Amino acid sequence: MSDRANALALAEVRLTPVLVADPPLLNTQGVHQPYTPRLIIEVVTEGGVTGLGETYGDAGYLELAKPLAASLIGRPVTDLNGLPALAAEVCGDVAAAAGPDAVDVGGLRGVRTADKLRLSVLSGFEVACLDAWGKAVGLPVHALLGGKVRDAVEYSAYLFHRWAAHPGGRGERDDWGAALDPAGVVAQARRFADTYGFTSFKLKGGVFEPAREVATIRALAEAFPGRPLRLDPNGAWSVPTALAVAEELGDVLEYLEDPVSGTARMAEVAAALGGTGPGGARLPLATNMCVTTFDEIAEAFTRDAVQIVLSDHHYWGGLRATRELAAVCAAFGVGVAMHSNTHLGISLAAMTQVAATLPGLRYACDSHYPWQTEDVLTERLTFHDGRVAVGDAPGLGVELDRDRLAVLHRRWLADDGTLRDRDDVAAMRHADPGWTAPAVPRW
Amino acid sequence: MSDRANALALAEVRLTPVLVADPPLLNTQGVHQPYTPRLIIEVVTEGGVTGLGETYGDAGYLELAKPLAASLIGRPVTDLNGLPALAAEVCGDVAAAAGPDAVDVGGLRGVRTADKLRLSVLSGFEVACLDAWGKAVGLPVHALLGGKVRDAVEYSAYLFHRWAAHPGGRGERDDWGAALDPAGVVAQARRFADTYGFTSFKLKGGVFEPAREVATIRALAEAFPGRPLRLDPNGAWSVPTALAVAEELGDVLEYLEDPVSGTARMAEVAAALGGTGPGGARLPLATNMCVTTFDEIAEAFTRDAVQIVLSDHHYWGGLRATRELAAVCAAFGVGVAMHSNTHLGISLAAMTQVAATLPGLRYACDSHYPWQTEDVLTERLTFHDGRVAVGDAPGLGVELDRDRLAVLHRRWLADDGTLRDRDDVAAMRHADPGWTAPAVPRW
Ligand SMILES: [Mg+2]
Ligand SMILES: [Mg+2]
Repeated sequence: MSDRANALALAEVRLTPVLVADPPLLNTQGVHQPYTPRLIIEVVTEGGVTGLGETYGDAGYLELAKPLAASLIGRPVTDLNGLPALAAEVCGDVAAAAGPDAVDVGGLRGVRTADKLRLSVLSGFEVACLDAWGKAVGLPVHALLGGKVRDAVEYSAYLFHRWAAHPGGRGERDDWGAALDPAGVVAQARRFADTYGFTSFKLKGGVFEPAREVATIRALAEAFPGRPLRLDPNGAWSVPTALAVAEELGDVLEYLEDPVSGTARMAEVAAALGGTGPGGARLPLATNMCVTTFDEIAEAFTRDAVQIVLSDHHYWGGLRATRELAAVCAAFGVGVAMHSNTHLGISLAAMTQVAATLPGLRYACDSHYPWQTEDVLTERLTFHDGRVAVGDAPGLGVELDRDRLAVLHRRWLADDGTLRDRDDVAAMRHADPGWTAPAVPRW
Repeated sequence: MSDRANALALAEVRLTPVLVADPPLLNTQGVHQPYTPRLIIEVVTEGGVTGLGETYGDAGYLELAKPLAASLIGRPVTDLNGLPALAAEVCGDVAAAAGPDAVDVGGLRGVRTADKLRLSVLSGFEVACLDAWGKAVGLPVHALLGGKVRDAVEYSAYLFHRWAAHPGGRGERDDWGAALDPAGVVAQARRFADTYGFTSFKLKGGVFEPAREVATIRALAEAFPGRPLRLDPNGAWSVPTALAVAEELGDVLEYLEDPVSGTARMAEVAAALGGTGPGGARLPLATNMCVTTFDEIAEAFTRDAVQIVLSDHHYWGGLRATRELAAVCAAFGVGVAMHSNTHLGISLAAMTQVAATLPGLRYACDSHYPWQTEDVLTERLTFHDGRVAVGDAPGLGVELDRDRLAVLHRRWLADDGTLRDRDDVAAMRHADPGWTAPAVPRW
């Protein structure tokens, strides 16, 4: 190996679980916890360069991350194609012991499998390796992915029905107030547009009966005429309900996201809508629930069940896997956009870097980031005109604030265990003690 | 841009067409010319690093390469995702003027389109940029592609029916002699096995009536029991002929390559063979003719027309596109292996680098390289145990021999134009003045 390659070998890997403040955002499963777990990954090369990664922080992920971190020592940060096999090898026992249902991320990203858990962990390491590699050679991550094709990545305003505060006075306060009806959601959208310049809007649905959410989308369409709107009930509806909503909102929606659960039902809805193709005029269906791994693609694409896949580098296995997903989608004329779960600035930087490299990305990406008032960066990323600029600074172009990291880690250490696994259903029980995960279809 | 990025900007691009000696290898279209055109590409960075690429050298490719070369000046070698759009922009007029059928590569790689021509040119530049980038940062090309998952890449012996010499005393001589019957082909295979250690064998078919080629495969199976064998008639057969051959050779063939022409006929054969899947026991069909671009994938995969795609970085658009193709194949349970046309050591190095990074590559790759006695490298690549080692030298790990390059370029300059476009049909007319491209299906 050359000196350069030796300098890129990993000397140390640090894992720091944190709990991050999260507002009381509602979804069909329940409500976000006051604090949500994330895992911050630091990889340090023999050359002394540190790379940053971020992924889900639930206990099950952390258990998988530990043996994977140990196995990376001595490997070069460029050695990424071998990561899945390595993860399967070193995490196999842990994953088997934990079982496929051991980690609940709110039932909002489809079927849970040991494979998906492993990829979600691996992706955090992949991002950290790319960051370290880029810093070591003076190149931005997007260059390591073949170069950006745009100088800024567009995001949508991610609108939520929400309460003013978490039940029982838990968690942090913010000044957004409640948004539980059309007027409240429109006010939220207005503030997002004014503050960040977002021009497309996504509403997390599946919270109230469909007629109420249809009315909210109608109100948004009136407040922001001609703007792209999306509605995502996380698979809460039946096929007839989905078709009824599509009929009512087809003129204003850019796409309908996971109206129903599972590929079979999505295919049924898509067929009834007229076999939407990329050039078609009918309402496309998007998903981050029925197509969440490469194994799920063939059936969904062959049946024309989805017209847009919402990629998420966390669970697809990293930035390079996200590019591969985009290639598969392109070959089948399926669109690609980007899903988001609660995340910090490291992940937003990673999402932006990879999104900048995808020629076929034609939709604004989703991001929860504006809802996260806390971060572990010295400088938060910013949205201008609804976009995050894609710089040419080495690596991800972000810097860790160790003091902030320590504060959020201490919160994780102090937790008695109840918040270390995100559980939107359990969080809901603080408001409604009898709450259980709703059966699907809910309406 | 950082200093590093500035140093990676392209300062110069050199294009050198060459004519390379090629033996009288037979295929269903005719015979290889005594000399075949290739294009050697050199890109030089502002930092003074030179990267090497190689692709088809026919006049039509050269015409496209010139404007693309000029447009690359000032762009960093890392800027690869933007190449297709750039090529479409700067080559659009040239390609339109030349027309989709302007360049004939022997009718052996499927339908010809302006798009495919452009990608074939672009791929040579992509390889050269990766070589320069790797050399500049001290990393092998495989590292830039995410790292090798194997230390050596296996190749198959590429067997041809051939004459002892080109008709009319044209071209160079070699000591292989003729191979026009089972004994001749088995002797050729034996020499390949003894010299290079190849343990899998591919026969270029479609030259003689199927019964004769079946007899040759049977002779190979007897001479090399249990070894993987393949037969590729380049789409020369009818569906019934293909099924009859499959029936006769199903017990000894690893796969049957392009027995018929076009996706519809391939699907018909595959269905009759029993809908071969990756885990199936039936004979799989491979292709480098009906799936040669991303646009051709959806129909072929949806119809289960092919079970193995033979990638070729030259016409898929480069090493990164080859990895994307492999990702698409993996998602659909389709195997991937590697096609070859007449090429030199730069391309063999590039093929080896990318093949080393593909976890899903489970077949020996094809290469014409042992037939090429001439090269433009200071040191030829070598096969041991049928494999090319994957080193960790920066870039492609090969060095240009400028004297050899000059010799082969002078041959190209001296040619009156008759050899500058490869035309196996025209070459055949030196032996058979009435020869025309055979109609398909031929048998
Ligand atoms: Mg969603
Ligand atoms: Mg072939």
